[in-house]
Amino acid sequence: MSEHYLYGIHAITRRLNRAPAECIELLCVDQPNARLRELVELARAAGVAVRSESRARLAEICASDKHQGCVLRTIESAPAMDLRQCLERIDADSLLLVLDGIQDPHNLGACLRTADACGVDAVIIPRDRAVKVNSTVRKVAAGGAESVAVIEVTNVARCLKELKQAGVWIYGTADSAESSIYEHDFRGPVALVMGAEGSGLRRLTMESCDYLVGLPMRGQVESLNVSVATGICLYEILRSRGDLGPARVR
Amino acid sequence: MSEHYLYGIHAITRRLNRAPAECIELLCVDQPNARLRELVELARAAGVAVRSESRARLAEICASDKHQGCVLRTIESAPAMDLRQCLERIDADSLLLVLDGIQDPHNLGACLRTADACGVDAVIIPRDRAVKVNSTVRKVAAGGAESVAVIEVTNVARCLKELKQAGVWIYGTADSAESSIYEHDFRGPVALVMGAEGSGLRRLTMESCDYLVGLPMRGQVESLNVSVATGICLYEILRSRGDLGPARVR
Repeated sequence: MSEHYLYGIHAITRRLNRAPAECIELLCVDQPNARLRELVELARAAGVAVRSESRARLAEICASDKHQGCVLRTIESAPAMDLRQCLERIDADSLLLVLDGIQDPHNLGACLRTADACGVDAVIIPRDRAVKVNSTVRKVAAGGAESVAVIEVTNVARCLKELKQAGVWIYGTADSAESSIYEHDFRGPVALVMGAEGSGLRRLTMESCDYLVGLPMRGQVESLNVSVATGICLYEILRSRGDLGPARVR
Repeated sequence: MSEHYLYGIHAITRRLNRAPAECIELLCVDQPNARLRELVELARAAGVAVRSESRARLAEICASDKHQGCVLRTIESAPAMDLRQCLERIDADSLLLVLDGIQDPHNLGACLRTADACGVDAVIIPRDRAVKVNSTVRKVAAGGAESVAVIEVTNVARCLKELKQAGVWIYGTADSAESSIYEHDFRGPVALVMGAEGSGLRRLTMESCDYLVGLPMRGQVESLNVSVATGICLYEILRSRGDLGPARVR
């Protein structure tokens, strides 16, 4: 369990709504604008203390002047989540990463690291025929394995069906994709599904996707490393959603 | 030396201008529009044969209907380039990747693989205190090491100065960056400079950059894996340039 600072109106609103018990204190500038006043109301309603701070002090705390006038002090424990809880928490901003059978611990580790950096809500992996979160994965993830919830499921295709029923749009990546990831706007809850090294998505997984998308390729190589492709796709999803504003700092 | 097909007006125009000796034949639809007629003129001026093909046959050849009415048959040998030649070939579309001291062959390999996929003109690495293109790198690059030109330089900072003098905009990535990569439009010739694992850019390298840019981070992790960050940045550069249209297929 450790303390962190979160900043930016959007990130703080979401945390207050989803995990009020983890929120200790909201620091807000002296003369809040309308959006900040709304945020203060939300914090008070959630039973979270509110304290005034100067704009300069907020910038100091989060080592950035992009705090938008608010910083949230939070505690966080290692996330534990099962598919049921994950489904219950789906909202319009949900972003899930489904890895359909990654074999290499370095790739899984790099994916968890990037998933955490992108604020992914959970990473879903198959229980069998895939690498587990072991010590190599944890080391490569550089903290991501302690920060992002990893859910093991027995059947990826069935899991995707449940996500779909919960309103999540399922985007699978495939070399055979007819559309580029740059042609979509990724509104609403999204699950990005990445295939295994070499073999890609399994047939049943592919058939469970709403869209198949690909990355444009200009060179000779057939495909990208799966952790690199995951990073490009996750950041493009956030960018297209307009979700790359201020984020958390330690 | 092997044969390849390249498609799309932009990609073919560039290849005809830069390496006419590698171009064997231009296949073009029967009733070319104005842009295609211009391309046919360019091919003829470069001494490249032109042949008519049906739209359907072009789609078959490149396994895509995004050929824009033209396919170029080319040969390619493994690229060999030194800094001098690289500087002479700088044009408005140039994209260079500078890796300031990558240590891990898996990271260098993954960077070469992505660099090739993005149509990077050359990857520049320091001669000393960095991993070389060895057999592990070649294997991980999955063909990228045979396709993208790698230039070793003795002094990265001096090399950046020469690139700058040749009109190239130098974008270094750093955690301390004041701007996000999503705030730039990357017009004109660009060199993306990535730092070593852990330590990032060296001081002299950093001082040689026109801009320092960063990736927004929402989670707990301090940074991304360097090959993942390279992929995200290269694709974002292409996207912001409007350069993610049709590309080459085998």
